Amino acid sequence: MSTERVLVLGADAAGMSAAHQALRTAKQAGKAIEVVALEKTEHTSYSACGIPYWVSGEVDSSDELIARGPERHRAMGVDLITGALATGIDASAGTVTYRKDGSEQRIGYDQLVIATGASPIIPDWARRVDGALVGGVAPCKTLVDGEQWVQLLVAAAAAGAGAAPRVVVTGGGYIGVEMAEAARARGLEVTLLTRSAVMSSLDPDMSARVEKDLAEAGVHVAGNAEVVGLEVDDRGWVTSVSSSDGNEHRCDLLVLATGVRPVSDFGPDAGLEVGEWGGFLAAPDGSVAPGIWAAGDCCEVRHRLTGQWTFSPLGTHANKQGRVVGTNVVAPGTRAFNGVLGTAITRYVHGDAHLEISRTGLSTSEAQRAGLEIASMVTEGRTASGYMTEAAPAAVKVFANPATRALLGAQIVGGRAAAKRIDTVAAALWSGATIDHLAEADLAYAPPFATVWEIVQLAARRLADSL
Amino acid sequence: MSTERVLVLGADAAGMSAAHQALRTAKQAGKAIEVVALEKTEHTSYSACGIPYWVSGEVDSSDELIARGPERHRAMGVDLITGALATGIDASAGTVTYRKDGSEQRIGYDQLVIATGASPIIPDWARRVDGALVGGVAPCKTLVDGEQWVQLLVAAAAAGAGAAPRVVVTGGGYIGVEMAEAARARGLEVTLLTRSAVMSSLDPDMSARVEKDLAEAGVHVAGNAEVVGLEVDDRGWVTSVSSSDGNEHRCDLLVLATGVRPVSDFGPDAGLEVGEWGGFLAAPDGSVAPGIWAAGDCCEVRHRLTGQWTFSPLGTHANKQGRVVGTNVVAPGTRAFNGVLGTAITRYVHGDAHLEISRTGLSTSEAQRAGLEIASMVTEGRTASGYMTEAAPAAVKVFANPATRALLGAQIVGGRAAAKRIDTVAAALWSGATIDHLAEADLAYAPPFATVWEIVQLAARRLADSL
Repeated sequence: MSTERVLVLGADAAGMSAAHQALRTAKQAGKAIEVVALEKTEHTSYSACGIPYWVSGEVDSSDELIARGPERHRAMGVDLITGALATGIDASAGTVTYRKDGSEQRIGYDQLVIATGASPIIPDWARRVDGALVGGVAPCKTLVDGEQWVQLLVAAAAAGAGAAPRVVVTGGGYIGVEMAEAARARGLEVTLLTRSAVMSSLDPDMSARVEKDLAEAGVHVAGNAEVVGLEVDDRGWVTSVSSSDGNEHRCDLLVLATGVRPVSDFGPDAGLEVGEWGGFLAAPDGSVAPGIWAAGDCCEVRHRLTGQWTFSPLGTHANKQGRVVGTNVVAPGTRAFNGVLGTAITRYVHGDAHLEISRTGLSTSEAQRAGLEIASMVTEGRTASGYMTEAAPAAVKVFANPATRALLGAQIVGGRAAAKRIDTVAAALWSGATIDHLAEADLAYAPPFATVWEIVQLAARRLADSL
Repeated sequence: MSTERVLVLGADAAGMSAAHQALRTAKQAGKAIEVVALEKTEHTSYSACGIPYWVSGEVDSSDELIARGPERHRAMGVDLITGALATGIDASAGTVTYRKDGSEQRIGYDQLVIATGASPIIPDWARRVDGALVGGVAPCKTLVDGEQWVQLLVAAAAAGAGAAPRVVVTGGGYIGVEMAEAARARGLEVTLLTRSAVMSSLDPDMSARVEKDLAEAGVHVAGNAEVVGLEVDDRGWVTSVSSSDGNEHRCDLLVLATGVRPVSDFGPDAGLEVGEWGGFLAAPDGSVAPGIWAAGDCCEVRHRLTGQWTFSPLGTHANKQGRVVGTNVVAPGTRAFNGVLGTAITRYVHGDAHLEISRTGLSTSEAQRAGLEIASMVTEGRTASGYMTEAAPAAVKVFANPATRALLGAQIVGGRAAAKRIDTVAAALWSGATIDHLAEADLAYAPPFATVWEIVQLAARRLADSL
């Protein structure tokens, strides 16, 4: 029997998790496989989530963000080809075409793992007539983007002799808030311009808390305002942004943080279905067609509570899915990816301001869209006993189904050490807990760590009592 | 119908939770009740867990530790009698005798709530022939103890012109570690003398990590050494401690942190059963006999995973049990206290040293005593992405039943932001999760908060893979 070739498209979290897991699984099974990976850039396995902290200056160098570079992957047995952009799949022939060094090439596979990730959404207004981005305008998704932002922010801060240099960040989600932090850390003024509310994956009342806290921390938040156009100077450099509410926002730089979309354009031609968000729709074992698998940000994922497809491009899922697929390509049916809860966390820190934000499960609007009854309550408390210097405020909104009493989710907005408590709720949710389970669980208390009724539990108890 | 009298013995967490919950429940039910509480001290509802932080100087005044003083309880409708020590119960007559101002009195009840708490275990060697404590030797359980320790430590630190003043802390549990922190914060040298290992509720390998970290942080830990006697000077003041390993530990002060026992001595005479630890054995609804209830540190509690009785004197349980009992005395059968997981947390912080410790569920020896199969694995990781300044080390030991794959517990020893992650495990445990549930759950990741495989989850995944 010839050695089976596993071909992986994309050499970041999902792809390289799959590649190494396939090698490990094959080794354990005493099976010989060859793993080839095509990566369009020159970079592999880096923390995209860490880029804002490199841009801010907290992380010194992009080297620190790279978990494993190309040479390391090769040393570990992955035949990695960088600068190789996959352009098409012929599923019946079992081949992939890719472009490298200007020429088109073809490679065969026995098993194909698609892990092509996601790419930033670039609005039309951000482009010049020739299609290039307007000067001073860029997304922040890749290491190349990050390098550019370090240079742009440092240069802008240094040049700021007159009016303070200002960055407009478009998009009030996680990356938007993190890039606002980074720009403030570099000494720039920041306007956060967002189509709906800031952190709109939270319920409106929780989002309003974030907006208030950001404003108090010196970020100008302009909500419910879409960009309608840019003004540029005679160098073609952005000078201001006009928004749909009729306002004009002067700026020297503009961060595009308006989301990403799955890289799946080659899918339909290969007969691979994509969903509402354009992501591949993999089965729990990661398969999308016989011999073809997908993992990571190029996929949609099932919400564990609703069973519905959603798009949740996060490194946590990518790593887990990569591991599932890497196992299953060698030992079919061994592992499953059992969905997501929509858990997410971020922070905004500047000077004395320390804001933490997290969520898990369903928001009110998500539950309603899924046809689920949902009840909720906000509880304000503290992260430590009130007499401790560690005590910071925290607002916890918990959600439950009033008919079944099933726990449905939580959202946290608070100070230091507030947000990671979301994992308490996520762990309960994952295990199918009721609101009463969370209200009565034996959670950890000592004065530096919590109040005697842990804030997350107090929130659950109060909601449970009201149902 | 005459107004029903609920008599509460003890006006701390459990008793006052029960008292106010009974009043609330009666009000909701439109029922008139009278709540009378007897408290042997002059203090009510204070944070015993906060006392070490007052002793350390982090909390300025004992006032901050008092959640509700006597006047506040009275204003809220509790007929509180302080300085009243309950001495006996006549269950058939429905009366309690108590001593106040030197005279014995008797009071009738319709429902009796016993919430007499726990008292420190005072070894014989700590007493003089007349029964009083040797000079410089004291427990740290009550506000009066705390006041004494503030004075003793401040005086010792001020007097330390020659050899650095030294405190011996006997008992290597939570209070022992916290009092070691407090004494170090006051500028004293500390020897922690402990019968078995330090933090012996952890597995030995995790306990060894704590011992190593404490030693590096400047605490002299003497393990497996029991006190056999004290040397005192001619003022009757402790000068050294001799231990069972033949060592002599010079000291100026000695903290008794050798545990507590339930205050239940009046129980057997009243026909109330007590358990192996001397605690009342309340049913899930809190009842111990018809019309008699018990809550808080005077009780033993059921371990949720084994069903066995255990002694777990913590404010978290006391508050929950008080609430259960307070509801059920008015509306029988409404609520239940569904056991404990043995969740606990503490820290040792001094200068740059920051050590956090937590546990939940069963340790190896606890599982073995309960006849359960248990497998475990230690995973070392970090609290944040390695490139972030927040990243601190954390060692997580997780436990599961290899036959059923049921999650059984976890222990964490690490730096800042490590220990509270135990709640993730506790919430999963409470909901009956398997090790696989924890390994695949959707937990929160962003670089300042976690590694992409959250350390608790990574630990679960590695154990799951090994089973």
